[in-house]
Amino acid sequence: MIVNGEHHRTVKFEDGIVRMINQTVLPHSFEYIDFKNYVETSRSISDMFVRGAGALGVTAGFGMAQGVLAASSESFQADVQKAAEHLKKARPTAQDLFYSVDRVLKAIEGLNPGDAREAAVREAQAMADEDAAAGKRIGELGADLIKDGYRIGTHCNAGWLAFVDWGSALAPIFMAKRQGKNIFVYADETRPRCQGAMLTAWELVQEGIPHKIIADNVTGYLMRKGEIDMFIVGSDRTVVNDASVANKIGTYEKAVLAKENGIPFYVALPTSTLDHELESGDRIPIEERHQDEVLRVSGLDESGKMNSVRIAPKESEALNIAFDVTPAEYVTAFITEKGIFNPDELRALRRKI
Amino acid sequence: MIVNGEHHRTVKFEDGIVRMINQTVLPHSFEYIDFKNYVETSRSISDMFVRGAGALGVTAGFGMAQGVLAASSESFQADVQKAAEHLKKARPTAQDLFYSVDRVLKAIEGLNPGDAREAAVREAQAMADEDAAAGKRIGELGADLIKDGYRIGTHCNAGWLAFVDWGSALAPIFMAKRQGKNIFVYADETRPRCQGAMLTAWELVQEGIPHKIIADNVTGYLMRKGEIDMFIVGSDRTVVNDASVANKIGTYEKAVLAKENGIPFYVALPTSTLDHELESGDRIPIEERHQDEVLRVSGLDESGKMNSVRIAPKESEALNIAFDVTPAEYVTAFITEKGIFNPDELRALRRKI
Repeated sequence: MIVNGEHHRTVKFEDGIVRMINQTVLPHSFEYIDFKNYVETSRSISDMFVRGAGALGVTAGFGMAQGVLAASSESFQADVQKAAEHLKKARPTAQDLFYSVDRVLKAIEGLNPGDAREAAVREAQAMADEDAAAGKRIGELGADLIKDGYRIGTHCNAGWLAFVDWGSALAPIFMAKRQGKNIFVYADETRPRCQGAMLTAWELVQEGIPHKIIADNVTGYLMRKGEIDMFIVGSDRTVVNDASVANKIGTYEKAVLAKENGIPFYVALPTSTLDHELESGDRIPIEERHQDEVLRVSGLDESGKMNSVRIAPKESEALNIAFDVTPAEYVTAFITEKGIFNPDELRALRRKI
Repeated sequence: MIVNGEHHRTVKFEDGIVRMINQTVLPHSFEYIDFKNYVETSRSISDMFVRGAGALGVTAGFGMAQGVLAASSESFQADVQKAAEHLKKARPTAQDLFYSVDRVLKAIEGLNPGDAREAAVREAQAMADEDAAAGKRIGELGADLIKDGYRIGTHCNAGWLAFVDWGSALAPIFMAKRQGKNIFVYADETRPRCQGAMLTAWELVQEGIPHKIIADNVTGYLMRKGEIDMFIVGSDRTVVNDASVANKIGTYEKAVLAKENGIPFYVALPTSTLDHELESGDRIPIEERHQDEVLRVSGLDESGKMNSVRIAPKESEALNIAFDVTPAEYVTAFITEKGIFNPDELRALRRKI
């Protein structure tokens, strides 16, 4: 997508180096950061320089390619296995990471070191291109749902920074804008980590899309006032069997409010994030994160430096739930790169898509 | 209520001085701040050292008493009128401020300066005592709704810091605790001004009530999981004709989520905040505040100083809606100092309570 008028991807592979946008300094500073070998790239994942299922998977694939490139011809298999294990440990709960590492391993099976090095890079690059293509297709299909003049609500960041390019929830918005539609976006700030205020707003600035940031408490008010025409969110994991959606905490609240006010609520996702195994979204283990994310807020202070301030009394604790599950009854339709499906249609596609 | 084991009121009148808890430094520091005359007391209102309808009204009453005390016997009426006009300008939209100033004016009507000075102080003190008594009664009546073991959700701060003592939404919680009930409170942080994380949490700490702060996005999740037994909020203005509630932004969201999940949703308020005139809550003008409250967050930085950090990109703007209106259909009952009424019962009491 566009930054300062130029096309960029969230993460790319250049001359054996994994180069990614440093999301820990956004939106206050735009810089790339380089990771020269698989150990460094693994650290980029564990230290959260990169986030979002798509971007994380692609980064792991590139890291694996680095591992294969660096493997000595004398101890090739052992070196490759060592890299794979190291990368998988970077974030043990991230499904996409395992998938990407295994896909590179499979692509080099039975090849001699020279051919394997070429195949590893090709496969990792293919995964990045597939991610970008899926995002673009979600954008094309989703943009058909956006009418000229629409005011669109979104939660958290399911833009291109969470993928390689285009993204999921924001892809239809980007595409509608490029089609010349006159649109406006309300970006929920998305406490506690404020990805809406920090990342979604930044992406919208770059694409020149008119928007305002709102506190998470404001969405219901705007919906009731008829100020929001549709709401689009992403999804970390969508369980096909009951068409329920695990996504950033607060998604459930927005979905209930949308239904109560007769506003269409869409979930945009690449089919790679569909879960065909679980019986129900309520079986998904919900991550609890460190309470400091709630008790404190980080940003740029008056002197222009990154700083962190504590809001709450020192004696108080916080409960920091990172995700929630939204049942199918609140979802109008799922926008995927393979088509738009309502919950019944999605359920019928279990293990077929 | 209790601070560090001692009883305190939010605002008090001692030897002609208005002494109040400095809410601009809470929860990080507990200090009183003195306002020596009506000009200073007026500034305490305009600069928001004091907030909340109840506390604000009482402060204005004390300020008016200062004006009467200081009025010269030679130009008594003129001096008193000047003080009244000055105080009314402190926050021109605050209904309670006008009410309190006028009530002191009425109490001194026709009296000679000496008697008037005594009457003004007596009337201002009476208003403070009435506020405290109403809060305590709300606590007694509301506590009957709280069962042992209840987990209670609340939004923003409708505790004693918004009044003189006890408060509205938190009064039943304080009373239940003093009755020995085992209770737990989830305090929504209440962005953008974070009164839940800053003030409600601080009051709960002082009263020794177990609690956790949660991001506003988490309430729906907890309700759906069956982790919240009841929800109590305050109200800035309750329109009797349609039993709708104007309160801090986000109240509507919580009310919808409570109904969707079958959780009782109570609104606690002194009857002095009932509006018997308006036809509908949707006629209440909604305040839009400065966008910096959304784009920035203030708190204690790592060096222990108050600081403010910017979350959002410098190019992004925010929409900062301060209040919303919750229709009667989402309210289980209103807890007042004169009884507990469901919406139909309240409507029947128009101009009778």
